Amino acid sequence: MTHAHGDRLRRPTMVDVAQRAGVSLKTVSRVINKSPHVQQDLIDRVLESAAALGFRRNHNASTLRSGLPTATIGLLIEEIANPFYSTIADVAAEVARHHETLLITASSEEDPAREQQLLRDLCARRVDGLLVVPTGADHAFLRPEVELGVPVVFLDRPATGLLADTVLLDNRGGARDGVAGLVAAGHRRIAVLLDSLSVYTMHERVLGAQEALAAAGLAWDPSLVRQDVRDPAAAGRAVAELLDRADPPTAFFALNNRITVGALQELWRRRSDAGLAGFDDFELSHLMPRPLTVVAYDLRAYARTAAELLFGRIGGDHSAPRTVILPTRLVQHPSP
Amino acid sequence: MTHAHGDRLRRPTMVDVAQRAGVSLKTVSRVINKSPHVQQDLIDRVLESAAALGFRRNHNASTLRSGLPTATIGLLIEEIANPFYSTIADVAAEVARHHETLLITASSEEDPAREQQLLRDLCARRVDGLLVVPTGADHAFLRPEVELGVPVVFLDRPATGLLADTVLLDNRGGARDGVAGLVAAGHRRIAVLLDSLSVYTMHERVLGAQEALAAAGLAWDPSLVRQDVRDPAAAGRAVAELLDRADPPTAFFALNNRITVGALQELWRRRSDAGLAGFDDFELSHLMPRPLTVVAYDLRAYARTAAELLFGRIGGDHSAPRTVILPTRLVQHPSP
Repeated sequence: MTHAHGDRLRRPTMVDVAQRAGVSLKTVSRVINKSPHVQQDLIDRVLESAAALGFRRNHNASTLRSGLPTATIGLLIEEIANPFYSTIADVAAEVARHHETLLITASSEEDPAREQQLLRDLCARRVDGLLVVPTGADHAFLRPEVELGVPVVFLDRPATGLLADTVLLDNRGGARDGVAGLVAAGHRRIAVLLDSLSVYTMHERVLGAQEALAAAGLAWDPSLVRQDVRDPAAAGRAVAELLDRADPPTAFFALNNRITVGALQELWRRRSDAGLAGFDDFELSHLMPRPLTVVAYDLRAYARTAAELLFGRIGGDHSAPRTVILPTRLVQHPSP
Repeated sequence: MTHAHGDRLRRPTMVDVAQRAGVSLKTVSRVINKSPHVQQDLIDRVLESAAALGFRRNHNASTLRSGLPTATIGLLIEEIANPFYSTIADVAAEVARHHETLLITASSEEDPAREQQLLRDLCARRVDGLLVVPTGADHAFLRPEVELGVPVVFLDRPATGLLADTVLLDNRGGARDGVAGLVAAGHRRIAVLLDSLSVYTMHERVLGAQEALAAAGLAWDPSLVRQDVRDPAAAGRAVAELLDRADPPTAFFALNNRITVGALQELWRRRSDAGLAGFDDFELSHLMPRPLTVVAYDLRAYARTAAELLFGRIGGDHSAPRTVILPTRLVQHPSP
């Protein structure tokens, strides 16, 4: 298997890095291999020299000769059981295959400590690049890796403390459209079901929902908002509780695909004619036994954009980091 | 993070392996690190000594001190976009988390060469164990890894050329029940849609379907069998082509969840009242707009059985390899 990167005239070696940094080859090796007890100023000098020369650890001839790496990228997602993430993993593997590169996937389970551990672990396992759906609030710990030539692209949520390529959805616009659609259908009391406001996408979608209500002259009613709706079962319970109130909502806006599925099942169980719109499409949405509106987008193109950005970086694109935002569209499914 | 294994009195070291094998420490190191050009008889002596002593590479003090590994297991599946596999990955991650172990997942895409490359790559990255849904016809190449203490558990399909723990479904019994259900509903012309007979599960399910037809005194009609149905779109095309025949089938048996979804969509599109039964349940099967029978089983328990077998091995269970077979049950969904 050939390495996926384009040929260069001569790749910088550890010797070049040592020379420029004015340190011994051994010091460069210790920094690169993250040996303990290296002085911080030596680490800084080596990292700066490596960055200036465009030195990439995995291009090092000795590493290539050691028999270890096939070209490999790492993908960090939140939860593989969600089709949103498993589709991302599928597309990333497809793009990686095209570049004769393997993909290894790990799940952060929305736990920042776990995310950091997994990312460090993937770096220690010598990946050529990282595709990350971030969970944590600080990704500065990845800076040395990035400077040693492990490119990182963030997908679905921006990183913090690190400048890097980022691919996002138009969360706010999509949520605005979703709620505006419910308003246009005559709804005035619209419940909003979400995971957690600490998740970037949720926060953006709430802002979009608020904008749509404000544009229609409707107040944002916190008593109709349910947070911590983390899976379909929780969504079903939230819908049941809201509908059992004396003044129930007449429609629901679900802020992700898992919430939509749970809300839909409970509405169908009750044969409720409440309106339902949800962010994210899902495979069988057009076959559901009741009307449903989804904020859809091209999930495969979304993931592909991020994966191809990453391979561009691996291939030597050193231009300034980019942020790409993909559009959404409203799809209304009548009862089949 | 602590290593997940129970404490032992003293773990065998490379020195012990070298002593017992009557070779130098350097030779042991070269075998363990898979250096090229080591004589086969030396490799055999080292592997035998390592196996006899219960030496495990990752317990080696020098590896633990190097800062590399958190405890990690590898999961090899076929295709992450299929909810069958993403659920397995989710459960494996859950069990691994319980053992303070990370999970990395890779997809073989049903390509034996790719499978072998990925498994070698995961071993080179020093995983503590492997959970494998095998694709290839020969897994003897994993023998040195297993003898060096990297346990392997096979899930959904048995390995070839290697004795190892294996967790399977009652494919034949489930398929028999599925077809018998269609026969009981009065169907005599039942089409069978499958991926490939070279896949173990498909072959077993075809045998089960044949048994059910034979038990009902019905002939197996090859003109009603469609192979190479690899995704929902292909399933839709196969259904369309069969229904457009002069003598169409009155029912379809779909041999996996992806085929069922595609067949169902095409049957619904045509408002066909043909019978449909499918192997594997899927999340929204009870909300489909037409009747559907599925061969269901507890997928999470299935995956958990395999993951827990693996951690038993990692924890020191050296008993003879086991094969566990999980039962299926027929679930009939009327039109909602």
